[in-house]
Amino acid sequence: MPDFDWERPLADLRELGELTGGPDGARRLAWTADWRAAREWLERKLATGTRGTVERDAAGNLWATLAGESDATVVVGSHIDAVPHGGWLDGCLGVLAALEILRAYEDTPPVTIKLVDWADEEGARFGRSLLGSSAAAGTLDPDAVRRLTDADGTALADALRENGVDLDAMGRAGLPRIDAYLELHIEQGPRLEAAGKPAAAVIGCFGAERHAVTFTGRASHAGSTPMHLRHDAFAAAARWALTVRESAVANEGVATVGRVAVAPGVPTIINGRCAVTLDQRALESHKLATMLDDAKRAAATIAEEEGVGVEWAPIYAIEPIAFDPRLVDLAAQAIEEVTGDAAPRLPSGALHDAAEIARRAPTVMLFAASTGGVSHSPAEDTPEDDLRAALRAFGRLFELTAANLNPS
Amino acid sequence: MPDFDWERPLADLRELGELTGGPDGARRLAWTADWRAAREWLERKLATGTRGTVERDAAGNLWATLAGESDATVVVGSHIDAVPHGGWLDGCLGVLAALEILRAYEDTPPVTIKLVDWADEEGARFGRSLLGSSAAAGTLDPDAVRRLTDADGTALADALRENGVDLDAMGRAGLPRIDAYLELHIEQGPRLEAAGKPAAAVIGCFGAERHAVTFTGRASHAGSTPMHLRHDAFAAAARWALTVRESAVANEGVATVGRVAVAPGVPTIINGRCAVTLDQRALESHKLATMLDDAKRAAATIAEEEGVGVEWAPIYAIEPIAFDPRLVDLAAQAIEEVTGDAAPRLPSGALHDAAEIARRAPTVMLFAASTGGVSHSPAEDTPEDDLRAALRAFGRLFELTAANLNPS
Repeated sequence: MPDFDWERPLADLRELGELTGGPDGARRLAWTADWRAAREWLERKLATGTRGTVERDAAGNLWATLAGESDATVVVGSHIDAVPHGGWLDGCLGVLAALEILRAYEDTPPVTIKLVDWADEEGARFGRSLLGSSAAAGTLDPDAVRRLTDADGTALADALRENGVDLDAMGRAGLPRIDAYLELHIEQGPRLEAAGKPAAAVIGCFGAERHAVTFTGRASHAGSTPMHLRHDAFAAAARWALTVRESAVANEGVATVGRVAVAPGVPTIINGRCAVTLDQRALESHKLATMLDDAKRAAATIAEEEGVGVEWAPIYAIEPIAFDPRLVDLAAQAIEEVTGDAAPRLPSGALHDAAEIARRAPTVMLFAASTGGVSHSPAEDTPEDDLRAALRAFGRLFELTAANLNPS
Repeated sequence: MPDFDWERPLADLRELGELTGGPDGARRLAWTADWRAAREWLERKLATGTRGTVERDAAGNLWATLAGESDATVVVGSHIDAVPHGGWLDGCLGVLAALEILRAYEDTPPVTIKLVDWADEEGARFGRSLLGSSAAAGTLDPDAVRRLTDADGTALADALRENGVDLDAMGRAGLPRIDAYLELHIEQGPRLEAAGKPAAAVIGCFGAERHAVTFTGRASHAGSTPMHLRHDAFAAAARWALTVRESAVANEGVATVGRVAVAPGVPTIINGRCAVTLDQRALESHKLATMLDDAKRAAATIAEEEGVGVEWAPIYAIEPIAFDPRLVDLAAQAIEEVTGDAAPRLPSGALHDAAEIARRAPTVMLFAASTGGVSHSPAEDTPEDDLRAALRAFGRLFELTAANLNPS
């Protein structure tokens, strides 16, 4: 029987925060010295606290394996990398919960357990999320990311090489046998807090459509150009931004206009150009497709009415994915056993490595509440009692999963 | 009788364009060496081609006086300064038309004629338009502009000093006797071209209200924040921008959201901040006040509905001003005599030095058409025949005005 001590991951999180965090937030940007320091710290914890053997795959993902009585394999993990000025929980919570599961077995566990720390989940340095997990899952196209550079102009391929990873060989990492993939993560949204719940079973991940949309009108004098003779690129973008929002609500998805750049962008000139990004997400493929179709039709209609041009360029897309129904049930059962209360079942609007793995193996996630819904910020937090509840529920989910795989 | 030769201003414009322009547009930014070179060129033209005496006032405005048979004084002029990468007509057209009026009198004119080249009409370097004319008209508050700096960090007061102008003494410039102020300028808008007319009598200048408006919401994850729990600063600004446009149309004015800056401005985060500028203009004070009131009420309502904050900070304001009705009639008469066609009567949406002078003396402007409505651009242009018609009409306006002041 595992001997879980859920105070240990809390202590580990604080220790990691002191090592690679501080008042300005987490410093664990993937492929940097800070990130390597965090991983070395994790490897020391694995070496001194568990009987697991550590290795890295061709994609830079870190694996620790604890062989079990059976070859049936439960993978537990998340990512230790962070956005710049990130929080103390995003990613590392799931890695340190996994560490505790390995640590809890003094004897051979009933199933083989693998901890995984996916490399570069955030994509914060080069703009491509889920890099390590997509490479291992076989969905990464090296040519699609080859020319990505960071803010200093360093190419992704060079940063990878500095970390012993060959971009063109990443896809060879592959995945080990996975009978179940379990990931604990903070929600990064406000729904659990609003519902007064510490944890949720996650039913799947939203798919995403991300596009650059550029409206091109005509820059002209803000005083001498009558309203009916304008070709105002910003006004067109503003009208359109409101329509994508309506479509998101109608399709139970979300839509965000995040980057907004106008030109010339001075008080006395009508903007001749407005370049924005659109991020749309939904849990069902056909709803996501409807949202994108709505946005394209609205852009064309509004562009014509406003006398401006509009161009689209794709940035990123990922299909929605439903998690394994049996594992979702087990996650809900685990939460209910721990909290004595009905477990919320929620989709994840955020992307996670689990969305890549779920295409290849039975997968589920468990969410801990996020205070104020805040993440990717030094202010990111979860009440300690909620963290404890989520950790205990995650441990229980592991036990239920292992028992299902290896009925004794 | 004056002996006008309206081919000479056209040749002057081309010569000035060669001296201080080129493929990248005009280089006559106020208070710079290029601007001083343009004025030295103008002074040489005045010295060799006219009998006028040149002086500069305490505000840096350049005056050339041709004493007449009477003290009744007609002032003609505009500004030789330009925005960076400006056009070949904005401002200098009116100065060189005025030069031709002085040049056309070999004998003593019936009235005293003063050419004026206002200093820093554009405000393109320090952000304050109509600097020289407002100082002379007594409406400049030195403290309101003292801390303005250019892009290199040079303070306005230092740049003025380099040009022999003391900021605190500028207001002492004052205005000479002005019985009529006449200014020829390009329209800088599309209305005359759309109407197929070369020139218009200008009935007054729009007033302007210019404000910085900042919406503050909450930055959060674009995937994990449901639509109904968002505090999206950009969405609020977009909604509001459409209302200010409707109010402008309803009040026969114009409104422009020019600067738009979102934060954090990345594709996957809801914007927590959206700072914009609003420029509103109208010909009647009460309509301009209604537009501003509409915008403030809409901002408050939308901010509340969207769960965001909103703050206003004034940037600039100028009251609308109607030009002298009798001079407007003379301008229309002059255009009709020259073109044989009814003269359009239009307000100016752009600000002009005439808006400052009109508060102190009978004033009118005459517009020449702008190709495509384009100005503040190297592409600024007017068909040559339209320029000729506008120059001839301006000469005729001068004659009619002088005759009115000095009936023979």
